[in-house]
Amino acid sequence: MNPTHGDAVIPHVVIVGGGFAGLWATRALATAPVRITLVDRHNHHLFQPLLYQVATAGLSAPDIAAPLRHILRKQRNVEVRLAEATAIDAPARRITLAEAADANPSHLDYDYLLLASGATHAYFGHDEWAAHAPGLKTLDDALTLRRRLLLAFERAEASDDPAERAAWLSFAVVGGGPTGVELAGTLAEIARHTLKHEFRNIDPAQARVRLLEAGPRVLASFPESLSAKARRQLERLGVEVVTGTPVSAIDGRGYVLGDGMPVPARTVVWAAGVAASPLGALLDAPRDRAGRVQVGADLSVPNHPEVFVAGDLASVQQDGRPVPGVAPAAKQMGAHVAHAVRARLAGQPAPAFRYRDFGNLATIGRMAAVVDVRGVRLSGVLAWWFWLIAHVFFLIGFRNRLIVLINWTWAYWSYQRHARIILGREAADEP
Amino acid sequence: MNPTHGDAVIPHVVIVGGGFAGLWATRALATAPVRITLVDRHNHHLFQPLLYQVATAGLSAPDIAAPLRHILRKQRNVEVRLAEATAIDAPARRITLAEAADANPSHLDYDYLLLASGATHAYFGHDEWAAHAPGLKTLDDALTLRRRLLLAFERAEASDDPAERAAWLSFAVVGGGPTGVELAGTLAEIARHTLKHEFRNIDPAQARVRLLEAGPRVLASFPESLSAKARRQLERLGVEVVTGTPVSAIDGRGYVLGDGMPVPARTVVWAAGVAASPLGALLDAPRDRAGRVQVGADLSVPNHPEVFVAGDLASVQQDGRPVPGVAPAAKQMGAHVAHAVRARLAGQPAPAFRYRDFGNLATIGRMAAVVDVRGVRLSGVLAWWFWLIAHVFFLIGFRNRLIVLINWTWAYWSYQRHARIILGREAADEP
Repeated sequence: MNPTHGDAVIPHVVIVGGGFAGLWATRALATAPVRITLVDRHNHHLFQPLLYQVATAGLSAPDIAAPLRHILRKQRNVEVRLAEATAIDAPARRITLAEAADANPSHLDYDYLLLASGATHAYFGHDEWAAHAPGLKTLDDALTLRRRLLLAFERAEASDDPAERAAWLSFAVVGGGPTGVELAGTLAEIARHTLKHEFRNIDPAQARVRLLEAGPRVLASFPESLSAKARRQLERLGVEVVTGTPVSAIDGRGYVLGDGMPVPARTVVWAAGVAASPLGALLDAPRDRAGRVQVGADLSVPNHPEVFVAGDLASVQQDGRPVPGVAPAAKQMGAHVAHAVRARLAGQPAPAFRYRDFGNLATIGRMAAVVDVRGVRLSGVLAWWFWLIAHVFFLIGFRNRLIVLINWTWAYWSYQRHARIILGREAADEP
Repeated sequence: MNPTHGDAVIPHVVIVGGGFAGLWATRALATAPVRITLVDRHNHHLFQPLLYQVATAGLSAPDIAAPLRHILRKQRNVEVRLAEATAIDAPARRITLAEAADANPSHLDYDYLLLASGATHAYFGHDEWAAHAPGLKTLDDALTLRRRLLLAFERAEASDDPAERAAWLSFAVVGGGPTGVELAGTLAEIARHTLKHEFRNIDPAQARVRLLEAGPRVLASFPESLSAKARRQLERLGVEVVTGTPVSAIDGRGYVLGDGMPVPARTVVWAAGVAASPLGALLDAPRDRAGRVQVGADLSVPNHPEVFVAGDLASVQQDGRPVPGVAPAAKQMGAHVAHAVRARLAGQPAPAFRYRDFGNLATIGRMAAVVDVRGVRLSGVLAWWFWLIAHVFFLIGFRNRLIVLINWTWAYWSYQRHARIILGREAADEP
């Protein structure tokens, strides 16, 4: 069912994934002579850099998400579909979608395809850890994590057994990248400040928050001096930073570091491994060890110039280094794919992608962050303000920005986190 | 483990339920010479009058809830426990709690007990309807309902079959009380305004929203003239109001009215029946047909002057009419129980409860409401403003009030509802 525009058939661009890469590509094609179908499993675009705030009860889920349909309502050449891609027939230029469990799969014929379905957790071959150490990629992940973190303090309060109480007050975050650092820092703040005066049998400030990094330092993508500063800021917030030893076991009771003794910890959070979305495997294309699709200079797949991959699912090398899996890179790739499609439509070759690195920011906790922007290195309060302004500025939609600012201002002055609501029907039944 | 205060043993008051009745009782005992244990299955107090706003994506879950521990952090004579009451041994003055699935049940010995666990849905002997027509009592209910309402439009958009599309765009709300009226009115607004321009294959404004009331009129607790006005306001918003015929069947495809033909409707919402919380059955006390405990004049249970019941779980007659199951009545009952406990502690008889009726408000939708306050009857815009101010004023906690006001102001001008985020892991898998 290719609708025609005048005499010509309008080319059909199918974009899988409404994250930064997919959404930026969609928008950049607003005035192109194409019709676009944007496919996503979720009905919303998620501002992933603030997901840890939902997990740690600082923000509500809708604060950092916006319905894709709403974002794109005025872009008349886009149709949004809530569905999952299940198969790609590249020679036939056809993609299969599962819309609902009770419906038959449907098919879309495309002229151009952009696969931008992002990344998921990876447990390095230890999938059995997933049940005990949840990760953080979706809003549902964040609400699950929030429930576990808040319930741990409840269980500690209810327990009469000192050893069990200590195990409930023992938290471990595995992985010293930006997400792990944010989670550990915020968790320490919750224990020390937010929950003050609220419990009668425990002192939440006694909670032990450990950040476990297998490598030699936290925030390995930053210069060494900033890693060291981040570590000191974490320690000042009350986080115990353990580097240099990998986690070798995780179960419902705790974890083991290297060949050491088991450490009791009822709450372990996974922020260590990232793997590409399994959709990459639907393409007959080379992939790297993390499952990312190795794309050409124009971000298209070898032998299929009409198929592009962008964002965390794409493996792109530039000047001998991989382009990092961060939001600005995904946006740039998405916009580039739109350029490439326009070039092809005009009968020209697609240009090569070039990542422009504007710098690297990571927040650590209250008034603590590190910034490395074009050689300017900041840490502490100044870096935190820089991070805050950048993140609020980039939040999609004016309304969300305003609400997030109010929530943060309130949280800042009161040490409170307004979203400390345990959701999930079995709140009292869960371990 | 009865701690002592000086020489005397401090009486222990156990309060089950942190809703309006339980929380108001707890606060009114702040300066009483007692120690209090407040038990709730959820970690939060819920502002139930605005729950329909969470279900219809106007507010986030944390906007209308506050952690009980946080509300009570400064009241040092209270201990909050996240647990479920599972048994009451009234002669022994002992209550059994289940804290977590993997923990042993624990016991609390009380000197006074207040049971205030509220109400739940009732399907009039048709429990099989529950799966097809979810009700609205908790935040999890609201998020489930939100998911279903938003997914219905997605399914309609994805369907090629006109009959199926119409069934997905057919919504029925069963029950013409305040909750049913709010839900139907808001749903019509969403279909007609909020979702405008967002779909490509359907026109959401074609959605059929029916409000089904078995009795002769909607809002039966209001004077007849206001019921008639409410009906006209609903119809103006696009709701089809059907009165006088009970629903006789509900399944996943639709419903039947009386002995009529099946009406296709993939989304049916239950706002018809309320039954008392099953905890009432743990007491050896007389109950009315809805399962509410029939209490004495002082709200205590016959033969157990130390056991009180308040809020929606209590059946109280006054001047030959039942005290209604509304928030102000629950608050008044809670405060009364605190009075009664204080009187008993002072060796005096507990006074009789007297409900002070300040009036009756119900909202219908955008700029539409009815108000009946001490003989003053309002409808339309003025009633809506009255309702809005009253509800924002009574929201617990300054921060929530501010956020809710901003959300509503925004929603009012933009017709947008910021919380249109489908949560739940199986978004794409659900029917």
